[in-house]
Amino acid sequence: MAVRAAVAGASGYAGGEVLRLLLTHPEVRIGALTANSNAGQRLGAVQPHLVPLADRVLQETTPEVLAGHDVVFLALPHGQSAAVAEALGDGVLIVDCGADFRLSDAGEWERFYGSPHAGTWPYGLPELPGGREALRGSRRIAVPGCFPTAVTLALAPAYAAGLAEPEAVIVAASGTSGAGKAPKPHLLGSEVMGSMTPYGVGGVHRHTPEMIQNLSAAAGEPVTVSFTPTLAPMPRGILATCSAKARPGVTAQGLREVYGKAFGDEPFVHLLPEGQWPATGAVTGSNAALVQVALDPAAGRIVVVAAIDNLTKGTAGGAVQSMNIALGLPEELGLPATGVAP
Amino acid sequence: MAVRAAVAGASGYAGGEVLRLLLTHPEVRIGALTANSNAGQRLGAVQPHLVPLADRVLQETTPEVLAGHDVVFLALPHGQSAAVAEALGDGVLIVDCGADFRLSDAGEWERFYGSPHAGTWPYGLPELPGGREALRGSRRIAVPGCFPTAVTLALAPAYAAGLAEPEAVIVAASGTSGAGKAPKPHLLGSEVMGSMTPYGVGGVHRHTPEMIQNLSAAAGEPVTVSFTPTLAPMPRGILATCSAKARPGVTAQGLREVYGKAFGDEPFVHLLPEGQWPATGAVTGSNAALVQVALDPAAGRIVVVAAIDNLTKGTAGGAVQSMNIALGLPEELGLPATGVAP
Amino acid sequence: MAVRAAVAGASGYAGGEVLRLLLTHPEVRIGALTANSNAGQRLGAVQPHLVPLADRVLQETTPEVLAGHDVVFLALPHGQSAAVAEALGDGVLIVDCGADFRLSDAGEWERFYGSPHAGTWPYGLPELPGGREALRGSRRIAVPGCFPTAVTLALAPAYAAGLAEPEAVIVAASGTSGAGKAPKPHLLGSEVMGSMTPYGVGGVHRHTPEMIQNLSAAAGEPVTVSFTPTLAPMPRGILATCSAKARPGVTAQGLREVYGKAFGDEPFVHLLPEGQWPATGAVTGSNAALVQVALDPAAGRIVVVAAIDNLTKGTAGGAVQSMNIALGLPEELGLPATGVAP
Amino acid sequence: MAVRAAVAGASGYAGGEVLRLLLTHPEVRIGALTANSNAGQRLGAVQPHLVPLADRVLQETTPEVLAGHDVVFLALPHGQSAAVAEALGDGVLIVDCGADFRLSDAGEWERFYGSPHAGTWPYGLPELPGGREALRGSRRIAVPGCFPTAVTLALAPAYAAGLAEPEAVIVAASGTSGAGKAPKPHLLGSEVMGSMTPYGVGGVHRHTPEMIQNLSAAAGEPVTVSFTPTLAPMPRGILATCSAKARPGVTAQGLREVYGKAFGDEPFVHLLPEGQWPATGAVTGSNAALVQVALDPAAGRIVVVAAIDNLTKGTAGGAVQSMNIALGLPEELGLPATGVAP
Repeated sequence: MAVRAAVAGASGYAGGEVLRLLLTHPEVRIGALTANSNAGQRLGAVQPHLVPLADRVLQETTPEVLAGHDVVFLALPHGQSAAVAEALGDGVLIVDCGADFRLSDAGEWERFYGSPHAGTWPYGLPELPGGREALRGSRRIAVPGCFPTAVTLALAPAYAAGLAEPEAVIVAASGTSGAGKAPKPHLLGSEVMGSMTPYGVGGVHRHTPEMIQNLSAAAGEPVTVSFTPTLAPMPRGILATCSAKARPGVTAQGLREVYGKAFGDEPFVHLLPEGQWPATGAVTGSNAALVQVALDPAAGRIVVVAAIDNLTKGTAGGAVQSMNIALGLPEELGLPATGVAP
Repeated sequence: MAVRAAVAGASGYAGGEVLRLLLTHPEVRIGALTANSNAGQRLGAVQPHLVPLADRVLQETTPEVLAGHDVVFLALPHGQSAAVAEALGDGVLIVDCGADFRLSDAGEWERFYGSPHAGTWPYGLPELPGGREALRGSRRIAVPGCFPTAVTLALAPAYAAGLAEPEAVIVAASGTSGAGKAPKPHLLGSEVMGSMTPYGVGGVHRHTPEMIQNLSAAAGEPVTVSFTPTLAPMPRGILATCSAKARPGVTAQGLREVYGKAFGDEPFVHLLPEGQWPATGAVTGSNAALVQVALDPAAGRIVVVAAIDNLTKGTAGGAVQSMNIALGLPEELGLPATGVAP
Repeated sequence: MAVRAAVAGASGYAGGEVLRLLLTHPEVRIGALTANSNAGQRLGAVQPHLVPLADRVLQETTPEVLAGHDVVFLALPHGQSAAVAEALGDGVLIVDCGADFRLSDAGEWERFYGSPHAGTWPYGLPELPGGREALRGSRRIAVPGCFPTAVTLALAPAYAAGLAEPEAVIVAASGTSGAGKAPKPHLLGSEVMGSMTPYGVGGVHRHTPEMIQNLSAAAGEPVTVSFTPTLAPMPRGILATCSAKARPGVTAQGLREVYGKAFGDEPFVHLLPEGQWPATGAVTGSNAALVQVALDPAAGRIVVVAAIDNLTKGTAGGAVQSMNIALGLPEELGLPATGVAP
Repeated sequence: MAVRAAVAGASGYAGGEVLRLLLTHPEVRIGALTANSNAGQRLGAVQPHLVPLADRVLQETTPEVLAGHDVVFLALPHGQSAAVAEALGDGVLIVDCGADFRLSDAGEWERFYGSPHAGTWPYGLPELPGGREALRGSRRIAVPGCFPTAVTLALAPAYAAGLAEPEAVIVAASGTSGAGKAPKPHLLGSEVMGSMTPYGVGGVHRHTPEMIQNLSAAAGEPVTVSFTPTLAPMPRGILATCSAKARPGVTAQGLREVYGKAFGDEPFVHLLPEGQWPATGAVTGSNAALVQVALDPAAGRIVVVAAIDNLTKGTAGGAVQSMNIALGLPEELGLPATGVAP
């Protein structure tokens, strides 16, 4: 009585990570794998690490191929999910790793993506207040963006507890897999090794409105976000350094207690002991998020740093975690709790 | 009725990898964790990726602490295993990730290690002819070295089939974790990133006699080995490029068939399709070995390239695989079949 | 009539970089090279890239050895420079790459370093207003810290022009050479490759008071600094992402003009064309600083990103540039204007 | 009376490195810069490290644009050099960084490149016996391939001295810039970081016949070459591990003397002291080649390891060095003798 899952976009990084996780998920059987330009190829030729699936052949991404599954993971370029979802109908659980259904504000969508808004689906971040309830039994899930996952985990508790002024400043480093597998000159190994560079500076990154949406919901008031993403010379990982002015009366002790409570029962989000700082290397391939907090008295700011794997907790792990909740399975099923380090 | 396992040397890279694997092994319960200079510390402080064990405290490496387990993994500096094994007695399965019991020739041991030979234990490379039989029911296992694992998988089939002259030339690149966690200037990130360098050139690396032992056994005659290890700017992985002169009459087709047969039933060793070459990145964190073969007609040589993760198939994965066999468990239990990529 | 230069601390990263630059400086002849634990060794054994000096032998760091030079570069642990300077007397130009003489506030020094304040020397950042005048003819130079160099170049123009509120938020990524050559476990290649991690979060990094000093001087009022340094998986480079709230009336155009004017005549600091972002890889081994600015209207913040090589412009290049000014030589002499890329 | 130089293919890695070197060459003035698909762009947009040339605009690669220079460097895809050379005439020095004129055997060219052989030009490896004489006054130079440069420097002395059997086995690791700047999936940073992989195994790499040509010339008899190139996770550098059976009577001492003599007067090739091994990191950006030799008595083989920067000594540095000789300039002019390390 296994869950039968298809993956659309199986030749990309997000799709490959979904498959890596599903391969060890005890309740899932992997069904159709589809791709666009790579359709017709052996999966082993484009995802050589997925050894048990090496001889599977990628099919075209069509409703016919994707039909007949209990769950369909979409790892497609934005703008394509709505049509697939409509064709598959309401009986199937669709987990969209793309951006199409994350934003509730159609205007913000159109401003950042330049196309009509497809709608809003239940948001796959169980750690948000009410997050699990929104997912239980749902047949549609919008998986959060990788940066918003890290940033929301980092700052939502401070905003929910009223500790921080509603102006967040975020600088986040991402591994190169966050930029996808389409070959572009600036993503060549020769270019990225030994180099750090920002991109999308000045609030123009498409993940910014999603952060604003999440942090404003936590704060109960509009939060502005200054977000600078940087590209780091590593394949995976996000290190998000987030800060905001502390409200009067906030103490280091009180700050720590808020985060201790926020994450105390979370299976995947961990407040580190004092003096230990999150390293993305510790969460490579894992669904864990490592978080640390500090109060900088001289600057009057709360600083929170979160480390996740952009492909796992930031994409495919969050997707599987949300699927588990939607299907009524144990939340941690099939999700690595340890990183591959060193 | 779980197997209770202790790990001596839990703060190092080999010990940490053993723990990472045991954490998802369905038949193993993790018992005592010991260290030397790190005894008394939380495991989370030295192995932050092992989140579920973060609050475990490292104990001293003593027989008393290690007693009372079904299996004890030793990840100790060479020269220390014999005393621990003697103290623990014959009832416990001891899996030694170190070098002490790998060599059968006492003279070779003393020449390369400069200390008395401790003995020879059943050799933890199940893929060798008779390899599984030697491990079944055993209470002692000598885990092979990481380089010999890759090289033996690469060349033993050719030698066993009589295809190659008994003079092997091997150049292997290793990730830095192969050099251990003791901080030394030449292992600093600043030194290794962006740089390749050989070490132990001219036959002086301690893994050379182990390769000679394995390949000579496969060939049924003495094989000489020219072995050059190099240090590559990556944390994990071994890429072993191995060649030997082809014996008269060897064809590309025949060569391929020999390897296809040799690995056809192996759960972890895979001959890649023609035209695809092994990448260490595809086996990161996985127990898989990827192998490709070629016949170079102009040079008259067989070239075999193997990729493994030095810490997984090359150390801890091989150790767990051998433990499974020794204990009569399914051989693949607790062992990742997929790599973490990209 | 060449300038004769000695380097104390020639076996470390800062000292090595000073030597790399001096080797192509047309007016400098390299004299004594000293070290501590490495004294007695060939330089080639510890700095194999400095081929023309490979056979030089490192001497003890004593006043006798350092005497008789026109310039002495100090690349020593903090706390040691004052004694050396006193012993060498006022006739020699001493360029201190360490922290001892950077801060003017003795209280801040003692708070961050826990030892008595040695004094304040002319500050080796020629790009500051009055920076060159302070250096001309000087016999003492305090080379700025690597992070303060990047941050000051990034934000001083905005503060000097009154564009920004006096609360700066800075997140800067540094290559591992910034942490020095003393081997520590967290600096091993195995640990840093594939991983980003913060350190010194919450205003405790020793470079913070130096940034406050520089930015406050530029602003003409006290500026607070929230500074989070992160360690990036690359040997060299600093990418500093700096922001502050924009004062009313600031426009993107106006912001750009201020920076255009500030750097228009600078030989080493370059405002990039719109749409191009600084990459540390473009300044590897170079004395250049690449800067880009943006106004984020939604967040109301000025964002400035600067890329330098921490060892060149951030240490040894800044040192040689300041030496050139102090000695009345052309400022660009011996300083690479191009990076080594890719 | 400066030499006026044009660079065709200035947007690629080889062309960029030629420019980096020419920028500090005291006798060269940089003229036209041409490209193909990047024509019309600012050089700063595609080569941001070449700061002093940032505002130069790339022109089309036509004879008209390239005319009127004293030297023209060609960094073009193979097959295009002959036409350009013919159009420019015999008066101009043409330095071809590509493969078109390296091989003397038309049949080998056609077998490996599948197109008609363009001819053979004087070979730009001055360290070969008679190498400098062949270049002096020449108006045509074929710059060697990067792998053949490293391998020939490593093995030619042994073959010239009759120490080695004529069957060489070579495994060489290259940084990713050796694969060029055209974006391909397997060259993405996400793919190459943390991974080693071979390519062109079994004698099929196009540099193989060039090695055979050089080593056979040195040996005075046909030498076979088993060559396996591997791709390493670093932007630059070649580490070539080369071995051959030692002829009877060869001693470690004798071997060392041969190499000491071979390189004793060479400005750029250095035999390292015993016990020190070449690291590519030590030659990053430098024209130096570091070489070490060993005799493995058990295997009966001579092992020689050479480290070069594939873009400098392996391409652009070799090109400039040969240009200097052809033009009668001091051979070392404009060529870095030190690497950028760490």
